[in-house]
Amino acid sequence: MFNQLGVIGCGLMGGSFALAMKKAGLVKHVVGYSKSPSTTEMAKRLGVIDQVAESALLAVSGADIVLLAVPVSATETTLKAIRHLISPKVLLMDVGSTKCDVVSAAQQALGKHIDSFVPAHPITGKESGGVQNADANLYQDCQVILTPLPQTRPALVQKATDVWSALGAQVLKMTPQNHDAAFAAVSHLPHLLAFAFFQSVAAQPAGRDYLSLAGPGFRDFTRIAASEPTVWRDILMANKAEVLVQSQRFRQALDALEALLKNDDAAALEARIRLISDARSQWQLAAPRPPK
Amino acid sequence: MFNQLGVIGCGLMGGSFALAMKKAGLVKHVVGYSKSPSTTEMAKRLGVIDQVAESALLAVSGADIVLLAVPVSATETTLKAIRHLISPKVLLMDVGSTKCDVVSAAQQALGKHIDSFVPAHPITGKESGGVQNADANLYQDCQVILTPLPQTRPALVQKATDVWSALGAQVLKMTPQNHDAAFAAVSHLPHLLAFAFFQSVAAQPAGRDYLSLAGPGFRDFTRIAASEPTVWRDILMANKAEVLVQSQRFRQALDALEALLKNDDAAALEARIRLISDARSQWQLAAPRPPK
Repeated sequence: MFNQLGVIGCGLMGGSFALAMKKAGLVKHVVGYSKSPSTTEMAKRLGVIDQVAESALLAVSGADIVLLAVPVSATETTLKAIRHLISPKVLLMDVGSTKCDVVSAAQQALGKHIDSFVPAHPITGKESGGVQNADANLYQDCQVILTPLPQTRPALVQKATDVWSALGAQVLKMTPQNHDAAFAAVSHLPHLLAFAFFQSVAAQPAGRDYLSLAGPGFRDFTRIAASEPTVWRDILMANKAEVLVQSQRFRQALDALEALLKNDDAAALEARIRLISDARSQWQLAAPRPPK
Repeated sequence: MFNQLGVIGCGLMGGSFALAMKKAGLVKHVVGYSKSPSTTEMAKRLGVIDQVAESALLAVSGADIVLLAVPVSATETTLKAIRHLISPKVLLMDVGSTKCDVVSAAQQALGKHIDSFVPAHPITGKESGGVQNADANLYQDCQVILTPLPQTRPALVQKATDVWSALGAQVLKMTPQNHDAAFAAVSHLPHLLAFAFFQSVAAQPAGRDYLSLAGPGFRDFTRIAASEPTVWRDILMANKAEVLVQSQRFRQALDALEALLKNDDAAALEARIRLISDARSQWQLAAPRPPK
């Protein structure tokens, strides 16, 4: 049980964390700060936070748990602004989708206080961001990846694990490097592909007509192309090297399928699709935790 | 109102058509044929068809409406098997996802009876095919594209339009060529990309681990990678030329996005993603018809 949660960045992720912590009875008081005053005001009005802070530093003042939920490119600046109030008693986490850059920014910004920082990445979200979409159940049944550093205080890693578990999430630990390699493959590249695909259809001469004919398959395939531009600019930039590695792998797989098409090798094409289709049919989202 | 519907291919599409026609009170009796006897037996047991036919020809015997719902590569053989019973009184339709190849097969197989054939493509489906997933509401609120030929009898085009409309679908007409170009863009290429992407992740050394971390974005982006192998072998083969044209457009869009990444041009990347994200947010599935 915490006394005070400081949320820096009262958007979908930060706002949902505040609501979830309250719903779980894990925190008494929530103080929030956002770069845009209208966001913080809305968070207050919607009951997502109890009190508006005028700065990131003031949101941390008196907090025993702090969640940084800003675009990853703002991590270093924000941590620099709050580092004076980070003590060993404070559990400091982020929710960024990339971890090597966040860890590097934290090392730059926090110096010796890096031991209070537990980097976290909850695998969840919605297409529609913003505090107006904050949801007390957003973290229920999702996975949360923690990427603690050698310096991270083990007690805080345990505390972080307990917090996310209490919100209904399944907690995994891995290195920042492994995290970024994995999410380049299963999240960052598909976003890039969805952006490229949607644009390639929309930008052609008959694109408008084509889009009016698209069905449910197209809808689901392109859903992530509606994702938030600044968030995805940051993620793709921060994890550029791994994303480009994955893109090369994807291009090789596409080349191989197209070669079967060009060679009229229907049997091999069917066999290849069958392997893929079977594997995808068997795949499922990580199972939620068994009920307590 | 029809007396007898002959369904050739009692899978998801054919079975759902039979159920929908019965539910709408548009047909008295349904006779079904499938290549696999166990499928036809199951269709009978599930009440999807009233009577099992021992051959495609027998399914057409006595029918005043015939639906061909077989993989598109089987179109010509099947139409040859039934052509002797196709008269001007019979409305003959297919449900194939490609139209140039189906029309060409129909011209080969039907000769002068081509005037009874109204090529149709309902834009709907489910990942899980088979008669066990047949659904009387599958065609409700979907679009159905008709690609009549100059020879097609106008009265049958009108009848086809009335049938699909009565099932709750929105009917559009276009040429087979325009149809195939459009669906290469909005359906066939995304399937190819989803197959390639899923394979590129699954086939890498850490693929198993990566797949266990994937979240809802991955789930939706790869949903169509679970599609039916023989159906998609046929579609991709039949519409190869248009699919490869669309793939080139996609690769150019991907190259352009990656160039921004490689050049660290964060501002241009964000601007590009914002255009795409806004356009995708505004896009929606074709609106269902206003209530009657």
